[in-house]
Amino acid sequence: MNTKFMERAFQLAKKGEGFVNPNPMVGAVIVKNNTIIGEGYHKYFGGNHAEVEALNSIIDSPEGATMYVTLEPCSHFGKTPPCTDAIIKSGIKKVVISMLDPNPLVSGRGVKKLKDNGIEVITGILEDKAKKLNEIFIKYITKKIPFCLMKSAMSLDGKIATKFSDSKWITNKFSRQYVHKLRHKYSAIMVGINTILIDDPLLTARIPNFKAKNPIRIIVDTNCKIPLDSKVVKTISKAKTIIATTNLAPEEKIDKLKEKGVDVLIIPTKDNRVDLKKLMENLGQMGIDSVLLEGGGTLNYSALKTGIVDKINFFIAPKIIGGYLAKTAVEGDGASLVKDSFSIKNISIKTFEDDIMIEGYVNTSFTF
Amino acid sequence: MNTKFMERAFQLAKKGEGFVNPNPMVGAVIVKNNTIIGEGYHKYFGGNHAEVEALNSIIDSPEGATMYVTLEPCSHFGKTPPCTDAIIKSGIKKVVISMLDPNPLVSGRGVKKLKDNGIEVITGILEDKAKKLNEIFIKYITKKIPFCLMKSAMSLDGKIATKFSDSKWITNKFSRQYVHKLRHKYSAIMVGINTILIDDPLLTARIPNFKAKNPIRIIVDTNCKIPLDSKVVKTISKAKTIIATTNLAPEEKIDKLKEKGVDVLIIPTKDNRVDLKKLMENLGQMGIDSVLLEGGGTLNYSALKTGIVDKINFFIAPKIIGGYLAKTAVEGDGASLVKDSFSIKNISIKTFEDDIMIEGYVNTSFTF
Repeated sequence: MNTKFMERAFQLAKKGEGFVNPNPMVGAVIVKNNTIIGEGYHKYFGGNHAEVEALNSIIDSPEGATMYVTLEPCSHFGKTPPCTDAIIKSGIKKVVISMLDPNPLVSGRGVKKLKDNGIEVITGILEDKAKKLNEIFIKYITKKIPFCLMKSAMSLDGKIATKFSDSKWITNKFSRQYVHKLRHKYSAIMVGINTILIDDPLLTARIPNFKAKNPIRIIVDTNCKIPLDSKVVKTISKAKTIIATTNLAPEEKIDKLKEKGVDVLIIPTKDNRVDLKKLMENLGQMGIDSVLLEGGGTLNYSALKTGIVDKINFFIAPKIIGGYLAKTAVEGDGASLVKDSFSIKNISIKTFEDDIMIEGYVNTSFTF
Repeated sequence: MNTKFMERAFQLAKKGEGFVNPNPMVGAVIVKNNTIIGEGYHKYFGGNHAEVEALNSIIDSPEGATMYVTLEPCSHFGKTPPCTDAIIKSGIKKVVISMLDPNPLVSGRGVKKLKDNGIEVITGILEDKAKKLNEIFIKYITKKIPFCLMKSAMSLDGKIATKFSDSKWITNKFSRQYVHKLRHKYSAIMVGINTILIDDPLLTARIPNFKAKNPIRIIVDTNCKIPLDSKVVKTISKAKTIIATTNLAPEEKIDKLKEKGVDVLIIPTKDNRVDLKKLMENLGQMGIDSVLLEGGGTLNYSALKTGIVDKINFFIAPKIIGGYLAKTAVEGDGASLVKDSFSIKNISIKTFEDDIMIEGYVNTSFTF
């Protein structure tokens, strides 16, 4: 099996990144006589599926052609009619699929429908790539809880700021640019109240020459200490802001935030803090499929301990900050023994000039 | 220029690692009709130079042959007669040299002597490789201060131990094996007294199926708190132990250590601690060309601050330990602002299964 057409379908799928959530990224290519006669991808949530986009783009009759598609075509009515029907109607005679639909309720149905209509179907081509591409979708569709990526930027000695909380900038502009792409890709960004109090960040996605989608901003703020003049409160028109607080918060503060257009979620407490598991369940119910966690050491440790983290991206800059008072990426109580630490799996490395980014998956959670 | 014979000379040179200090590692290959007719390397301190070893090994007349040698042949009497004389006498007609002797007192003299005797000389072949191979020698011969490599092993979040000081083992066996090779390569290993008090390590080089050389063990111990029953004191027969202390140390303790065969250095204080710069000068005068620093956060910070560190090897294991009380690789006061942090240059990455080792050079010092 020549994989070049499927590779092209992946290229196309990736273009939907950040715009299709909570749908998967999907790309499709129609090939006849070894030539691409149509291609398309799922462009935005609610828009046409990739298969239909590809069929709409054809420059030759699809009769007898082969379709390469990164995800099993749907056979049910959702926001759009079933893609299987469109494929069958088109006269396509063979469909090559990278991965089956991960939704257990419908997985395999698209393949069956196609086969029942005399279409040859091949599955599993570059399947690992498809699973990685849609790791967010796969977790969300099966668990209804957002996929969570913990991102941190640190010096070689593990410091995320100096003893005086200075952190501008530890990593270089290429690393920071990549983080803005992550903000575009993920539906929401989450920080703790201390990050707001110390850095007062905007938490938007800023990518030169690209109209990036801003993530929903979620502030974990047990006692609702967020200043009304903080940037995330003052820029509601740019991006939605959710304060995740508890019944420990003063009601009048909550009212004031709501007046300013901030969304306030009252989450049950656990150990006198926002119960992060409950928060993630809530976010999942709101249709948020993915959370980029840019927490400090306390929030990061709670997140790992609670088991909500699926993946990590740790950026390491070629600097040594030092300082026994300087903050590190993960603090809280911490493990008592090395053997009790969190194990990170499937480690891979990216470099951004002299910065090194270590990516991995948390053992206790989804790993691809 | 075909570099394969020089590459072979480097392979040979590397065999002397750990045995030749404070001499350089040198390899030599003699080639005639594109065939190696002799090769050798500097095997141990005081032994024959590589050129002589190569000439001693020839299986054909060296008349008209070419010698490839990783370092400029010496033209002076040291522990052995000048190599240039042996080369001239042998009838070799061409010498290809990777790098000139870094000792400014003799650099270029070997080349001149060979040329004066009608031998064609080419220099600078794979020179960067030669400089890296002998970075220890280059610093030591020019500064008379040991080359210092700071090694640390940490979790992804920068912890070198848990809050309860557990550190066995953060990195995997392949990383730890590499560290034992470093201990063989470096003339001395240096730790702070806290490492002895907490871990009581042996600090020897243990490599399976290889008779490794143990480094001289140096304990930085301002107040001479080292227990007389610590492993480094009890195993003097395995490796020399030096306690670097100050006049803050009780005399009777020093006497007891000396009785046990421990070497005690009284070093001036700086900020009420051992003055590390003075210590390194002392070690240099003793003929120690290289120090592997396996310090905790306090010693590591002092070492960086004092400017004695040339290179770092940070091993990062795919674990997250967490804990605001857990120790990190570099502590002390630390930088106030990110822009004041220590900049690490020429970053490169090695992997040991899932462990990642980041190597780099300290800005303010020797970099290759």
